Amino acid sequence: MVTREEEMQGILDQVLSKITPGDEERVAMERIASRLLERINGFSDEHGVCGMLVGSAARDTWVSGEHDIDLFILFPESTERERLEIVGLLIAGSVLSDAERIEERYAEHPYLHGVVNGYGVDVVPCFNIRDPSKIKSAVDRTPHHNSFVREEISGLEGDVRLTKQFLKRAGIYGSELKIHGFSGYLAELLIIHFRSFMNLVRDAVDWKPGEVIDIKGHGARAHENPLVVVDPTDPGRNVAAALSLDNMCRFIDSARNFLEDPKIEFFFKAHQTPLELGEIRELLHKRGSVLIGVQFQKPDVVDDILYPQLEKMERSTKKLFKMHDFRIINTGSIVSKKNIYIIFELFDRELPSVKKHIGPPVWARADAERFKAKYHEKKTLSQIYIKNGRYVIEIERRYRTPGPLLREELSKCGLGKDLRDAIREQKFQILSKEELLTKSDHEVRIFIHQLLTHNDP
Amino acid sequence: MVTREEEMQGILDQVLSKITPGDEERVAMERIASRLLERINGFSDEHGVCGMLVGSAARDTWVSGEHDIDLFILFPESTERERLEIVGLLIAGSVLSDAERIEERYAEHPYLHGVVNGYGVDVVPCFNIRDPSKIKSAVDRTPHHNSFVREEISGLEGDVRLTKQFLKRAGIYGSELKIHGFSGYLAELLIIHFRSFMNLVRDAVDWKPGEVIDIKGHGARAHENPLVVVDPTDPGRNVAAALSLDNMCRFIDSARNFLEDPKIEFFFKAHQTPLELGEIRELLHKRGSVLIGVQFQKPDVVDDILYPQLEKMERSTKKLFKMHDFRIINTGSIVSKKNIYIIFELFDRELPSVKKHIGPPVWARADAERFKAKYHEKKTLSQIYIKNGRYVIEIERRYRTPGPLLREELSKCGLGKDLRDAIREQKFQILSKEELLTKSDHEVRIFIHQLLTHNDP
Repeated sequence: MVTREEEMQGILDQVLSKITPGDEERVAMERIASRLLERINGFSDEHGVCGMLVGSAARDTWVSGEHDIDLFILFPESTERERLEIVGLLIAGSVLSDAERIEERYAEHPYLHGVVNGYGVDVVPCFNIRDPSKIKSAVDRTPHHNSFVREEISGLEGDVRLTKQFLKRAGIYGSELKIHGFSGYLAELLIIHFRSFMNLVRDAVDWKPGEVIDIKGHGARAHENPLVVVDPTDPGRNVAAALSLDNMCRFIDSARNFLEDPKIEFFFKAHQTPLELGEIRELLHKRGSVLIGVQFQKPDVVDDILYPQLEKMERSTKKLFKMHDFRIINTGSIVSKKNIYIIFELFDRELPSVKKHIGPPVWARADAERFKAKYHEKKTLSQIYIKNGRYVIEIERRYRTPGPLLREELSKCGLGKDLRDAIREQKFQILSKEELLTKSDHEVRIFIHQLLTHNDP
Repeated sequence: MVTREEEMQGILDQVLSKITPGDEERVAMERIASRLLERINGFSDEHGVCGMLVGSAARDTWVSGEHDIDLFILFPESTERERLEIVGLLIAGSVLSDAERIEERYAEHPYLHGVVNGYGVDVVPCFNIRDPSKIKSAVDRTPHHNSFVREEISGLEGDVRLTKQFLKRAGIYGSELKIHGFSGYLAELLIIHFRSFMNLVRDAVDWKPGEVIDIKGHGARAHENPLVVVDPTDPGRNVAAALSLDNMCRFIDSARNFLEDPKIEFFFKAHQTPLELGEIRELLHKRGSVLIGVQFQKPDVVDDILYPQLEKMERSTKKLFKMHDFRIINTGSIVSKKNIYIIFELFDRELPSVKKHIGPPVWARADAERFKAKYHEKKTLSQIYIKNGRYVIEIERRYRTPGPLLREELSKCGLGKDLRDAIREQKFQILSKEELLTKSDHEVRIFIHQLLTHNDP
């Protein structure tokens, strides 16, 4: 008979066999990384720089199929910032001279991203600072993270890979603003602390917001974040600062579910047959709700700019609906190659014409007079009356249906710069249920299905 | 040219000429009051009691057409409560021996009400207690109120009448639980304090909740009520305790309106042509809202029992609607001779089937497991998902329309005893808009019109 323990180990072994890079994959990666690193070090005499391979490639914690190489150009601490930026980009450009595509990207200062033999390569200039509490730029921490992990991780690489794969499957891997999840460094620290994937998930089932993990016993500063993992190289910093409450909860929940019923589906998506149009129609009919969408062109900005603006737009639109008495059941947005869709499932197809307008307290005499004067000559649906100490009047509402509301008011909402530009001058479409369902962007239909059923993505 | 002052005085004189009792009316009242008083005093030798005429008849502050006589039977302070109740009722019965209808009514102890020559007569036994702070029963205060007002009111009777008539017109005269308004005694105290109706309304325009009027400078105890008028005969008591915030505000508002545009309509209702059925239909169509009513038999209880229960029923039903996601625009109830109607104007004719059910926080593990177990086998409209740190699931709602909700759940609401009895075993009807509008109770239609337009009642 197979024990539960053996069964669990069987699953993990099966996962590891799929996600551990093979010799060939590993050698290919190392070969390219070494070549690029040498190119950086070729500038050491001239500029006093040295190259460092960082990230999962340096720590052997990458998951098979990931093709990311992170290279840092370390400048002497005394280098002027402007010089670092200019010379840094020059060196990076030279390192990526044979890359297929090169983009300038921005952290606290610019760096280059290029694709070399199918590998995504970041070449990032930074200051080489001995004491990590005295860094000049956020990226200066990375070499310290790298050293710490390299010293501690030996023998735990497989458990880091399992953790990353588990997080990926749950949709919560990545600390970027699109995801609000767990960074690779955070996954490594959790494994260094808990010593194995199984220990980690067994601990996580009892996590609560306010959980603190302090590997070095530095003592944690007060943080607002739901999970605090003290950076062993810089005790003032929370490595889990980007993790949202809901994603922390999703991890807790996945950990519980996995322990209760361990199976490989917690690491890899089961095959899903995409839903037929008729099935989605049936679903919507059963729910009896209203679907409406906004579509506009995706602006040409990076994800870390785009997604916060998209979140803001969702929040603003929710507020707009609420202010006009529409109730929202679900909201979500999807970014396709060219377009952005924000989709709302609403309670109300049509609101009554009458709208209650709550005025000032009766005893605020000046306000009361203004209120009365304002409605004195207007066509209203009721007299002014008194309720809970305030004047109230019933008037005709401006928007009885959601379409015209979005059409007229969306562009006046609080929006980020790029999305404001993207929708200005009515450059957006309001999509009805039918228009949404028959969109050529196939992803839209899949997304609607997830929005309505909250099925595992 | 007529000055504003003269114009105002002209209006008040006109009102006074209508509301001041004429000689004939006054003599008739006095004759009956004296006769009944003598009957009480006929028992003074045997029981040591004496009679006292109290209320507006005793203070000459009654409004022409009011036919109320309040007689108190004062028992010596040392009388036992049981004896007072038994002997009190015997004497009262004898006083009202030739009354048309006699009812036993209850304050803190029983008293009799009868109709004599068209006058409503209360005969109330009480203790004759010298120090009003040491009263044994709430009604023992009345003789003290009577003495105080009789001493202070001379020359101000007309202003009290104006005040009462002004309050009546605004629908806020009466401290009973049906009205939550100003009592006659309160109107008298306000005039004793402000010395005239005009001074009163000029002061009231700046009242705020928390207003304290302390005629004798007793210093007021802290009260929760919006208006505090310290009882000059018992400083711990607020004479305006029954006044609701909204009725205080209505008085403030009426005072302002009257001063701004003085006219006799602030004392007497203008003639209103009752609205045609077609006009109400048109009104409802314009509002685009939903009307629904509940009808049941009026239980045979006095107003001070009925109205608090009716208010409670309205509150409970509002809560019921809210809990089931129906939004209320207006609610009101009307008591006709035989029936009670509670009428709701709602936002929603039909709700979507889907209903969000918010579960426990993810980190409350035991609750989380119960929640998951509960919905594991059920037919739901979504998977369990996580939002704002909590589990959420979408299920089919039980009531999509308001009728079945009321039919099934009304009797399970928090209700007072008599109304609970009145509707138990489904002894109530749900009325649609059409059924409400075509009710034979003509008052219902008038009431609906007021409910929707908030026109001056």
